[in-house]
Amino acid sequence: MSTGPFAFFPMIFGHEAVGVVESVEEHVEEFQEGDMVVPVFRPNCRECRDCKSQKGNGCSIFGGELVPAMPRDKTSRFKGMNGETLYHFLSVSSFSEYTVVDVVNVVKISPEFPVDKACLLSCGISTGIGAAWKVADIEEGSTVAIFGLGTVGLAVAEGARLRGASKIIGVDLNQEKIEIGKQFGVTKFINPTTCGEKKISEVIKEKTDGGADYCFECIGLASLMEDAFNSSRVNWGKTVILGLEMHRTPLPVNTSLLLRGRSVTGCLFGGLKPKSDIPFLAQKYLHKELNLDGFITHEVGFGDINKAFDLLLEGKSLRCIIRMD
Amino acid sequence: MSTGPFAFFPMIFGHEAVGVVESVEEHVEEFQEGDMVVPVFRPNCRECRDCKSQKGNGCSIFGGELVPAMPRDKTSRFKGMNGETLYHFLSVSSFSEYTVVDVVNVVKISPEFPVDKACLLSCGISTGIGAAWKVADIEEGSTVAIFGLGTVGLAVAEGARLRGASKIIGVDLNQEKIEIGKQFGVTKFINPTTCGEKKISEVIKEKTDGGADYCFECIGLASLMEDAFNSSRVNWGKTVILGLEMHRTPLPVNTSLLLRGRSVTGCLFGGLKPKSDIPFLAQKYLHKELNLDGFITHEVGFGDINKAFDLLLEGKSLRCIIRMD
Repeated sequence: MSTGPFAFFPMIFGHEAVGVVESVEEHVEEFQEGDMVVPVFRPNCRECRDCKSQKGNGCSIFGGELVPAMPRDKTSRFKGMNGETLYHFLSVSSFSEYTVVDVVNVVKISPEFPVDKACLLSCGISTGIGAAWKVADIEEGSTVAIFGLGTVGLAVAEGARLRGASKIIGVDLNQEKIEIGKQFGVTKFINPTTCGEKKISEVIKEKTDGGADYCFECIGLASLMEDAFNSSRVNWGKTVILGLEMHRTPLPVNTSLLLRGRSVTGCLFGGLKPKSDIPFLAQKYLHKELNLDGFITHEVGFGDINKAFDLLLEGKSLRCIIRMD
Repeated sequence: MSTGPFAFFPMIFGHEAVGVVESVEEHVEEFQEGDMVVPVFRPNCRECRDCKSQKGNGCSIFGGELVPAMPRDKTSRFKGMNGETLYHFLSVSSFSEYTVVDVVNVVKISPEFPVDKACLLSCGISTGIGAAWKVADIEEGSTVAIFGLGTVGLAVAEGARLRGASKIIGVDLNQEKIEIGKQFGVTKFINPTTCGEKKISEVIKEKTDGGADYCFECIGLASLMEDAFNSSRVNWGKTVILGLEMHRTPLPVNTSLLLRGRSVTGCLFGGLKPKSDIPFLAQKYLHKELNLDGFITHEVGFGDINKAFDLLLEGKSLRCIIRMD
């Protein structure tokens, strides 16, 4: 963990959170003291061509480069005990009692919304739901294959379930995901280690009459992205990549399969525009049309934050709420 | 030319054509003697799930495998002078005075349609127009980059022009395509050999404010497909592959670019459903909303067919009409 685009140390991590506005700088009109807000790594200025477009969710003013600092003046707002600069992480840095976030990276949430559920809209779950609803735009009766049943993959399943998918196949190495997957709509679980001689794509094709309508990669491995693509149906099979490829390996696409009408795309934050789509998801939750509660498996105080990482590494948690108080 | 999926010799080539029905077999109701018809390599039974779907253009009954014979009984209807079997090519075999084609591979054309233009709807031009209109669905004001300005690429340009694209960049090694391209709406020509140190994708990004909205590969080279993808815009850039990769090399997709909202897809016959979309294009031509005439650069008698291939290899022709009479 010493190289890569996020490696500016010392750094304050954390990017999936909820908080209350303590104060605002001059010229900020969108927020005021006391507002409940969700920070989001994906900026949304609402004024550039990209933010105004119906397509995509990038921001051409603030989304161009990843800086470990405030996006406008490139300075850090954190100092360590010895006065040294501490860097920002993904424009959020939420593992901290206080943080400073640009208005383009903050979304207001209705005060009636339960605070411990609000933070779930800040990244992973929104990413999965957005990929299912906005990027893939799954229709009723579709077949879906999801590679990786962490929170993101399970949120894709939840999105597919709510759209009325007829089959939702979950692929994971962790056998415990069979039962967890069912809670989010997974109808069939495949553990690649038990497929024997068969390729995972062959198994999925057998179970979906030739290939899934929508395939999602939620891990970040080129080989798995290839499996996902190869599991997609001829004519309209769409593969959506959500995982950040961990070795920066390109995805090798079989062009003969591509020419038969398949497609592959990718997204960050599920293709959602934070300022408009997070309030939309919040409404869905309040109307009991979206399951967020099931994702919270643990809760610890800030002093026990390392327990949360242990649970994650052991594959035991989906979302662990870290209380700052 | 001795291996590959089309290598069954001796074979009667030719798949872009027009003809008149000489006779029909029992149970054929869709056609009758004297009908003007366009044969198409892409079957369209109109009864399977795929043909009935609004998406894609494959046929799940007749489109599964490529056979050098009739698609239903897998027999050949051609014999050579010594009684030997001659194989069919792409279900059409039009380099022949007479051929036998399944009804799923034939489309009726209105008798008022000029016969020498009708054959242009049989493959390449429909492929390019379909890719622009149906697969990419280009909107007014879009920027477009086309790799390869043969008939297919120029038909993409024509489709983009008719949709009101603001910039249509054509990429080709053949300098003569500058003038030809203009006739089909190409607004800017790039010859990769004159780009110096710069990558072609860098040049295109400079000319399109960060990347083209739509990129099309009309050659069949993985490296060029990669250039096309890398030339596409962040957030919604869509790359459409039309070329059949000539070395069966996979397309290596940079997943970091993909995650920022780009997509790549491919199509055969431009994603068009022959039975409904060819008559639609024919109407467009009759209403003077589609340029077909400009694609016809030469005409030869059947006896001079090799001249047509010479012209093609020399990069001198777009479409050469081969008269059978």
